Amino acid sequence: MCHVCVTEAVKARMLSRRDLFRASAAGAVVAGGTMLGAAPAALAQGAARVVDLTHTHSPDFPTFGGAPGLSFDQQFAFDADGYNLNVLTLDEHTGTHIDAPLHFSADGLSVDELPLSQLVVPLCVIDIRARAAADRDAQVTPDDLAAWIAAHGPIPDNACVAMNSGWAARVGDASFRGDAEGLHFPGFHIEATRMLLEETRAAVIAVDTLSLDHGPSPDFATHYAWLPAGRYGIECIAGLDDVPAAGATLVVGAPKFRGGTGGPARVLALV
Amino acid sequence: MCHVCVTEAVKARMLSRRDLFRASAAGAVVAGGTMLGAAPAALAQGAARVVDLTHTHSPDFPTFGGAPGLSFDQQFAFDADGYNLNVLTLDEHTGTHIDAPLHFSADGLSVDELPLSQLVVPLCVIDIRARAAADRDAQVTPDDLAAWIAAHGPIPDNACVAMNSGWAARVGDASFRGDAEGLHFPGFHIEATRMLLEETRAAVIAVDTLSLDHGPSPDFATHYAWLPAGRYGIECIAGLDDVPAAGATLVVGAPKFRGGTGGPARVLALV
Repeated sequence: MCHVCVTEAVKARMLSRRDLFRASAAGAVVAGGTMLGAAPAALAQGAARVVDLTHTHSPDFPTFGGAPGLSFDQQFAFDADGYNLNVLTLDEHTGTHIDAPLHFSADGLSVDELPLSQLVVPLCVIDIRARAAADRDAQVTPDDLAAWIAAHGPIPDNACVAMNSGWAARVGDASFRGDAEGLHFPGFHIEATRMLLEETRAAVIAVDTLSLDHGPSPDFATHYAWLPAGRYGIECIAGLDDVPAAGATLVVGAPKFRGGTGGPARVLALV
Repeated sequence: MCHVCVTEAVKARMLSRRDLFRASAAGAVVAGGTMLGAAPAALAQGAARVVDLTHTHSPDFPTFGGAPGLSFDQQFAFDADGYNLNVLTLDEHTGTHIDAPLHFSADGLSVDELPLSQLVVPLCVIDIRARAAADRDAQVTPDDLAAWIAAHGPIPDNACVAMNSGWAARVGDASFRGDAEGLHFPGFHIEATRMLLEETRAAVIAVDTLSLDHGPSPDFATHYAWLPAGRYGIECIAGLDDVPAAGATLVVGAPKFRGGTGGPARVLALV
């Protein structure tokens, strides 16, 4: 490559990085789709690895309330009818799922109204596995966020900030919910939630546990701060051990049920 | 740019196109995700536009059988309970949804078993809008596929081959299903389906209508050829007017219900 070309390539790359962190909160809506402020990092680099961040949902998948979140009613069977078809009974807030703003507000956005610009977003992973291994009620704190920012730079607009507490690996174990006396699992501390609200344009917080708030929360403080502000959540996310702390692009396959307060989603990362 | 740089750029581009069409059928499964054979075109180019190919699902969304495919049972209401939560009753084969191989086979893959390499795939759009405007029972034929290939090159491995018949625009109209005497809408002709099975490694066929087979089909020939072969379908796809005939990357947010025969999906295109 000649010197002029090297210079041009470096300039283009610098511009692309600047644009990435300037991506607008809402994205620019254009005819036939939503422009991202700039291509998220994984896309700009030509992502070639797909990581599934979704648990398989089933009647025995653990739920916040304890009752099954999904059941199947087989209406047609291949042997008798020539094809298989089920009708499902499905709690919106079970499996790897979305909390839409409407879940904790009178008139917030429903799950079908989440903007496209908030469904394909940069992924920031906050790793609290070591602390959560010693304290099942651990929380993501402002210090955790500050440490991520010191290492990786500002949290991009529209980002998903995801807590990796190591809980996804416990999904087949009773300790995923807690014990006989109550719910015990990690979540976002209200002060970390406030920091994200006040200092960033992150669109999403995600947890690998049953609730945005930690298990013993008496008041759902994070739910009541985050969702009515028009931002949304993902609960029971999986697979965070297999993505980098920064640089992946999250594609949130949120269900598009009219007026829904959430629902099981297919969540993929492009790395 | 100097001549050497131009040459290098052209070589890089040609290599990238070759890799695209050589993408392996299964993708290579690696620890922590699935490698795509090569980054799909839209990703390699740093996709910056997201197009929603998903209809909003609701109790009045048209269905193949005619009965509502979705209903809401509100369990908790914000005013009384402090939060909103619904339990849904949901027919797997309504809304913009997946037909998994298990839908038309005794033991094919269920929707949660679809490989990741078949969820992030090149999108090929077959435009039969002009013919379908004159014939509501029009079908995608081998000639349509040959014309696409002549214009755009071989159908990439794992591709989604999608029929754009213009039907998505009719979704609020009774003509989306047909008339009082029967079902009338476009679909894939069995000979086109056989051509895709025998000559390509396409993973998915998608239709903007209620069925992979056209409305008056007496035998579901395309369903019975395609799905038992281990490939899958998407029905009631939307938004195909807003994506190019070639070059977009489809991200199929298939639901991950254990043992499901399909289910409503969030389908996005990266352009």
